[in-house]
Amino acid sequence: MDEIKGTAQTRWPDLAGRIEGGHHILPVRVYHEDTDFTGLVYHANFLKFCERARSDMVRLAGVSQTALFSGEGDVEPAAFVVRHMDIDFLKPARMNDLLEVVTSVADLGGATMTLLQEVMREDSVIARLHVKIVLVSASGKVMRLDTLVRAAFERFVNEEV
Amino acid sequence: MDEIKGTAQTRWPDLAGRIEGGHHILPVRVYHEDTDFTGLVYHANFLKFCERARSDMVRLAGVSQTALFSGEGDVEPAAFVVRHMDIDFLKPARMNDLLEVVTSVADLGGATMTLLQEVMREDSVIARLHVKIVLVSASGKVMRLDTLVRAAFERFVNEEV
Amino acid sequence: MDEIKGTAQTRWPDLAGRIEGGHHILPVRVYHEDTDFTGLVYHANFLKFCERARSDMVRLAGVSQTALFSGEGDVEPAAFVVRHMDIDFLKPARMNDLLEVVTSVADLGGATMTLLQEVMREDSVIARLHVKIVLVSASGKVMRLDTLVRAAFERFVNEEV
Amino acid sequence: MDEIKGTAQTRWPDLAGRIEGGHHILPVRVYHEDTDFTGLVYHANFLKFCERARSDMVRLAGVSQTALFSGEGDVEPAAFVVRHMDIDFLKPARMNDLLEVVTSVADLGGATMTLLQEVMREDSVIARLHVKIVLVSASGKVMRLDTLVRAAFERFVNEEV
Repeated sequence: MDEIKGTAQTRWPDLAGRIEGGHHILPVRVYHEDTDFTGLVYHANFLKFCERARSDMVRLAGVSQTALFSGEGDVEPAAFVVRHMDIDFLKPARMNDLLEVVTSVADLGGATMTLLQEVMREDSVIARLHVKIVLVSASGKVMRLDTLVRAAFERFVNEEV
Repeated sequence: MDEIKGTAQTRWPDLAGRIEGGHHILPVRVYHEDTDFTGLVYHANFLKFCERARSDMVRLAGVSQTALFSGEGDVEPAAFVVRHMDIDFLKPARMNDLLEVVTSVADLGGATMTLLQEVMREDSVIARLHVKIVLVSASGKVMRLDTLVRAAFERFVNEEV
Repeated sequence: MDEIKGTAQTRWPDLAGRIEGGHHILPVRVYHEDTDFTGLVYHANFLKFCERARSDMVRLAGVSQTALFSGEGDVEPAAFVVRHMDIDFLKPARMNDLLEVVTSVADLGGATMTLLQEVMREDSVIARLHVKIVLVSASGKVMRLDTLVRAAFERFVNEEV
Repeated sequence: MDEIKGTAQTRWPDLAGRIEGGHHILPVRVYHEDTDFTGLVYHANFLKFCERARSDMVRLAGVSQTALFSGEGDVEPAAFVVRHMDIDFLKPARMNDLLEVVTSVADLGGATMTLLQEVMREDSVIARLHVKIVLVSASGKVMRLDTLVRAAFERFVNEEV
């Protein structure tokens, strides 16, 4: 494939979405795999879209989940874990729809944070999630959010949400 | 495969789980597809386990989702749609775990019903979901739960939940 | 979300990948959902990546799968169906990897076409698929590829593959 | 849930399917998650059904994939990896279908084995897979199949397949 020049990272600058005005925005295309026999997007797949958005938000904010998980430096290996979710499924989505997941931080505590995620189709909210996340160590303990992680998320704390 | 005798339905009497004392119980094995690189079950997959349980509960209660969807008789085609979910992820689950989804009806209204679903590993609750469901017609209207559907779910209305 | 200007289509020009030199290229990020407890991408998920690439290739080539499926004009409703797949899983992929699916047409017959799809990580081929596809009508018959569909795929017929 | 008696393992004796006459048979119900907007089972999900069957076949044969992966005893941690797949998608499957995955060993070599897997609906073959599997160590080397693993699979080597 000698037509492809440069690294993949350079060729696809928008792959992780964008940070705009205190929000992270990730575009998501609806494919076959996302729909079911009723013709609509299967409800659990909205959670996948939102997890992709969270992963890309922390990626753009400079936090590596794989580094956290392998425990680089002298910190204990850890992973973000979803503790609670509250989801309103407001409108259906369909094959070929172009959706956008808009994520901001609703609450940033010492050990937990709550994200607000809205799945949009143009100006319509298709689904709205409140997601409570903790950082859990390999031994199963809830860890305090350290400086790096806090700094990464603080830019998404949004007064008006 | 001449070794296989009888219909598949007869050979696997427990495939849709069982109704016991006002609850429906479905066993779920954790496979590769359910886990992620952290070694734990990916959070959205608990929603898949719970949807399988709901589908099998209505199957054992005598309601055919495919008949509803094709609009048999003179009723408009319809499908069950999840409107709201509230989920507590309480403990992790792992590859090879044998889980059980225990479902009962927390509230049965004129047009909506709320199910309580607990994903158990032996006596531990791994995840707890409250799922609000409506029956939506092909034209997008919320329909009243008819006699057949109400009768199917009434046996799962449980005083103590 | 008044920060978002213009249509989503305009904001994300690369979402369906790009056509370059007789190939279609789609970037795919590896997320939690794609991996399993072994730390690697679960094998069946490479098929999802490749289906996304095929859907975006036909999208960029001007064929609407939803229009085909609803049977616009006086043509019978139809859908592309995978008949045969041959897959070499050559190297593992991991969480956060940035992959590219490169698709071309290996053979374009009267009623079937065979696509060659390579999942790449930079210059390495991670997986190679040969996918034989037919267009099947709602009544289950294999249909001849019509002028529109043939024209769409002909640009991807590649001498050197 | 005091109604539930005994361990889950005892309550669901058929959960891992059954070994019959040199084959392993696993029943699989088609749920919402398995279908797509065309009304049919999404092609990649047949691979999930077949992986469940392989996992349950090795389970019933006494091999623990999690023990292999954690490297119990003095053996290097290892996991089964799919190297090659050849799949014929012969007939469509739909929501609520009761399928059975019938697995046998087509070839058992020193370091690789090839399984034949047929997804059946009563007497019809819906999909047929040839799956070549190797055991790969944590360091990425292909390992010889040891005595335990060979013995587990030998009972499924079938003359007539």
